Formats: sequence, C-alpha cells, structure tokens
Amino acid sequence: MAETEARVRFGIIGCANIARKLARAINLAPNSVLHAIGSRSIEKAKRFVTVNGLDPQWVKIYGSYEQVVEDPSVDAVYMPLPTSLHVHWAVMAARNGKHVLVEKPAALDVGELDRIVGACESNGVQFMDGSMWLHHPRTAKMKDMFFDSKLLGDVNYIYSTSTTSPSPEFFESDIRVKGNLDALGALGDLGWYCLGAVLWAKNYQLPSVVTALPDVTRNSDGVIISCSASIQYKEPSAAGATTNAIIHCSFLSDTSMDLAMTGSGGSLNLDDFIIPHGESSASIEFTKGAKFVDLHIGWNVKPEKVVVNCELPQEALMVKEFARLVAGIRTSALLPDPKWPEISRKTQMLVDAVKKSVDLGCEPVYL
Amino acid sequence: MAETEARVRFGIIGCANIARKLARAINLAPNSVLHAIGSRSIEKAKRFVTVNGLDPQWVKIYGSYEQVVEDPSVDAVYMPLPTSLHVHWAVMAARNGKHVLVEKPAALDVGELDRIVGACESNGVQFMDGSMWLHHPRTAKMKDMFFDSKLLGDVNYIYSTSTTSPSPEFFESDIRVKGNLDALGALGDLGWYCLGAVLWAKNYQLPSVVTALPDVTRNSDGVIISCSASIQYKEPSAAGATTNAIIHCSFLSDTSMDLAMTGSGGSLNLDDFIIPHGESSASIEFTKGAKFVDLHIGWNVKPEKVVVNCELPQEALMVKEFARLVAGIRTSALLPDPKWPEISRKTQMLVDAVKKSVDLGCEPVYL
Repeated sequence: MAETEARVRFGIIGCANIARKLARAINLAPNSVLHAIGSRSIEKAKRFVTVNGLDPQWVKIYGSYEQVVEDPSVDAVYMPLPTSLHVHWAVMAARNGKHVLVEKPAALDVGELDRIVGACESNGVQFMDGSMWLHHPRTAKMKDMFFDSKLLGDVNYIYSTSTTSPSPEFFESDIRVKGNLDALGALGDLGWYCLGAVLWAKNYQLPSVVTALPDVTRNSDGVIISCSASIQYKEPSAAGATTNAIIHCSFLSDTSMDLAMTGSGGSLNLDDFIIPHGESSASIEFTKGAKFVDLHIGWNVKPEKVVVNCELPQEALMVKEFARLVAGIRTSALLPDPKWPEISRKTQMLVDAVKKSVDLGCEPVYL
Repeated sequence: MAETEARVRFGIIGCANIARKLARAINLAPNSVLHAIGSRSIEKAKRFVTVNGLDPQWVKIYGSYEQVVEDPSVDAVYMPLPTSLHVHWAVMAARNGKHVLVEKPAALDVGELDRIVGACESNGVQFMDGSMWLHHPRTAKMKDMFFDSKLLGDVNYIYSTSTTSPSPEFFESDIRVKGNLDALGALGDLGWYCLGAVLWAKNYQLPSVVTALPDVTRNSDGVIISCSASIQYKEPSAAGATTNAIIHCSFLSDTSMDLAMTGSGGSLNLDDFIIPHGESSASIEFTKGAKFVDLHIGWNVKPEKVVVNCELPQEALMVKEFARLVAGIRTSALLPDPKWPEISRKTQMLVDAVKKSVDLGCEPVYL
C-alpha cells in the first residue's frame, strides 16, 4: 500500500451532492487522499468539510476553483460541475498539470470533449469520466462469465434504462434541467450510462446507426427530460449476428437502472447496474438455454443468480484505478492510459447522436 | 361444479403442438370436456389421442375439420391453425353455432378478424383468443395491487419483450415463418403478447401513435422474425402523465418474456408474464418509492416479491372462463361477452399498426 505522502492528492472543485460521495471514495481508496476542496463560496467549502467530517488540518479550503487547479500540491482534480463548465475547468486543470476526473456527462458534445482530452494529452495527464459502474467487480465478472465464455451465445439484443423521479423542486432548480447549464438533460445525466453499457457490451465498437424514438419529452427550457433510442450494429459478428439495442432514460419514472442482454443462448439481467442496491455485493441474474418444458406449461430452467462481493465501493475502486494510473505517470513516467478517454469519447459520440436524432425529429444518425 | 353432461364440449381442429396443451386444459377445467379432435389426416388425429392419453371412447376422432365444426354435439371449437386459416374455419364454426376459441394471433389483420367476430355476433356465439396470461390470477393481482390502488403512481412507461430462439428447423419449416401461412411472423406469434400487455396496462385504451423501430429483421420470405416498436399515448391521464411503451419481439434471442411498468411512484417487473416459470405459482417483483440513500451509495428499498398461487394452470382458467360464458349463453340465453372480442380486436389493431409502420419504413401510424 502506498504511504500517505505517496498517495495521489485530489482537489475537488464544486460542492455538488455527488462530491460528498467522491470525497468519501477518495479517502477510502488506499492510494489517494483528499487534499483540497474549492467552491465559489468559501462558506460553502467550509460547510462541505464540516458536513462530511473531514479534518480541516488536512484538507485545504478554497473560495475559488482557480486556487485548487493552481495549487502545486494537488495532483488530480475531480470536477462535479455543471456540464457546461467542464471544458473550461478541465482544460485549465490539464494546463496546470493536474490529472482530470470529470463527472459524467463528460462534456456537452464531442467537440468540447476533444478540447478536454486534447489538453490532457498535450500535458501528459490522465483523463477519466465518473462512470463508476465500469469499476465494479460485477462488471468484470459479467465480461468474464458471459462474454468471453460466450455463455449467452452471440449477444444480439441489449436493453438499458436509467430513470429517476426527482422532487418537484428538481424540475424548478436543478442544473440538470437548465438549458444554460446542462443542455443534455436526462440524456446526459442518465442516458450516458445506458449508452455506455451498450458500448461496453459491444467491446467499444461503435454502432452503425442511432435513431431517437418519438417518445421524447422536453421541459419548457427545451431540455430533454425523457427519451429513448434505438441503436443498431448492422455489421454481423463472426457468428453472423447483428446487434440491436434500445435505451430509455427519464426523469419522469421511479428509479430504475436495468441492463438486459440477450443472445441466442441465454440472457442476463441487472436491475441496479449503475448504483448497486447495496455496497458489499451485487448480483447478476441469468438464464441459459431457456426452453419450455413439454406441453409448454413452464420453463426448463429458472433464472439463476451470481453474487459478486465488493471489497470497496465502486466509486472507491474508480478512484483507486485513476490514482494507480496517476501514480504510474508520476513515478515511472508512464504515459496516460488512452482507454479511458476513448471510452468517454465514444459514449459522448452516442449521446451526441441521440441528441442530433431528437433534434432532427427522430431521423436516423449514421456514425 | 357442472355435471359431466352439462360440461361444454370442445372440438379441436388441427393437431399443432399447442393443441396438446389445450387438450389437457380442457380436461382440467371443471366445466368443459374434450369431445372431438379433427385433423386433415385421420392418422394424425388418432395419434394425437394416443399420445395425449385421451380415451377414444370419449373423444371422437375425425379426419377433417368439417366433421368437427358440423358435429351437433360439439359446443365450442378451439383452433390452433395457421393464422391464414382462421377466418375460414372460425366463420364456418360460428355459422354452425359453435363458440370460437382461436389461437393468437387472432387473424392476419383486423379486416379478417372483423369477419370472424361478425360471424360470431350474428350467430350469438362467444369469441375469445388464446391469450392465456390474461386469465392467470397474477394478472388480476397486478391490476388490483398496482393499478387500482395507484401503488406505482401513474404508469407512464411500459416495456415488454417476447423472444425465443427456436431450432434451425423452425426457420426452415415452421408455419410461423412462412409468408403464405403466417405472414405476421414474430410480430403475430410473440408481439401479440407484448402489444396485448400494453393495452391491458392502459385498460384497453388505444394509443395515439405506433412507430416501428428500424431494427427489423425479415427472413427470405419477407416474414418478420424480429422487430420492436414505440407506442405512444399522447393524451394525458387525469394526473397529467402521458404513457410511452416499447415492445420487442424476436425469434433470434433466447427465451424472454419481460413486462416492466413504471410510474412516478414505483415499478413492477415480471420476467415470465406469458408462460410463468412454473404452474403452481407466479411472482411479481416491484419497488415502490425507490430512492438512493444518503451519499447515493445504495437504495433505500430493494425489490420486493409478491407470490400468487394458481389453483389451475392459466390455460385451464382460460378454458374455464370461456366455458362459463358458453354455458351462460346456452342455459340462460345470455348474450356473448363483448369484452373478449374487443380485447382481440384492439390487439389486432396494434399488430396491424406495427406491421404497417414496418412496411412503411418505420413511419408513424396514427390510430
């Protein structure tokens, strides 16, 4: 385990709710430590330290974002800011030699993301977005058990939802439904996960076509608060199967986060793929070779469950992986891992494609 | 319980696999009895009686469909025929005063179905299609527990799949993929259930628009073997919510039959809504008021399960209900129940709309 002084020192800019989760994760991960918190209001930053039980002796409190990204003792910056502010602050952090962990959606569009990733590349710093579920051991287990072993056969259908039903105040005041702060709305905040899951299942191959479904709901600002999309992989796999996916994201329905993947040989279902029901373990439900018994009066198999234990919460595992890469760059002069910006970029491309299709009245968008 | 002589006497025309299930159901239901089986080949009909352990003393064996529909001692005819033959035989049965229980899809299109239903009406006989799941006590429990009580809040999103991955021979020879026998393919055979489930959840209100998704797969005969559709209810409910649904049916994926319904206040999930995993009971999984705990590191509630016991298999309950209506018409001169043909007709309308949208290259079809 790294000594405290060798730990990657994080600065957080912005005191959004999600920052509390990450502050805890940074201190849970064995190779990182929370070093600074910055808010546009020093009072807010102080309150953040108190509320989260942080020790002001060890955490610097700043009344601006600049001070965090300019602090020479900060190695990496985590930014839970409104999406419209990512490009400014991420580029500034990279130019100051800080590694960048940015909340999802990574940017408002791929053009902005390219500016961020470009700044990270030219300054030799690591980039990663905050898709925590990719770091849960369940995700690795799914890949290993169901994909690499072809237990599902060729996966030809993927379905994913991310819905949540916030309080009425959310619709009045939350940044995620304000056109000038987070113009991607539910698509960026929730659809990001669904589109990322499709890409994950397809090993980050890009689809051929993305088509928004006509069930779009926008708020009075024109921000998407509910939408769905069809995603088609037209190029057949080695086994001859094409893959279709459907995603649905919405601020109008009670919390759901389903991920279902079906192949000719089986199917798997998660009902909590983004945030597992509990921290210590998570499960995968699957059926393999499901047929009907004679007379079609029942099934030959029932859904089975695999439980995967989790030594650390997924957000701490994310921080741990990020800090591992940062430490490698710092101590061994390794290059940043291009995998993570590539995952973000492809996810952003799909978000952009759905947005474009929505704006075009559900015309297909070819990638 | 009805005496044997008062039981409704069924004739079955056609020895399709599904007929075996119904032969058993007819004899399990307390108010019906299998009276005759007819096939175009008397050998096939004889074999059906033997294979299914029926007593040839009590079951008449006919080498034609005509003999069944003309037998004066047959009260009702069950027809598991290719869809293209339904209109001919159902109309003939009705004209002979037989009550008509027809396998789904009820007809190739609503025009044909209207001829069937018209013949049933003018001859005063009951019509019903073979959607068995509507008769399972779980279905009544769902309505009672989740809809009538508004436990889910206003249901604004419905998702339903019906997929199965048949053997390669199926694609060569099964009537359900032959353009001249069952031109509706997976949409008629599987999508029928999904569309019926959407209508069920909306209390048989018709949607405003149906749009096929671009992920259509057809076989060399042009028959749909996989497709999806978006179904929109644009008229807001009393509480102001509109409802969107997505259905997916496919002969290309391992068996799945999911029905998920989500409202602002909760969601429910069935993974075996068409044919329950087992006969004796079936369950409903639901969450109500799902939120994240502080720090968003887990859920405040986990999915709960309601188990519903089943005294008779759902197909026997279907036969029982059908026979109850037939007995009422026969003994008390009641009129046929218009509910069942209405359910079939609306389901057929949605099947037709999806088919039309597919044929139009995914143009929206307004109802």
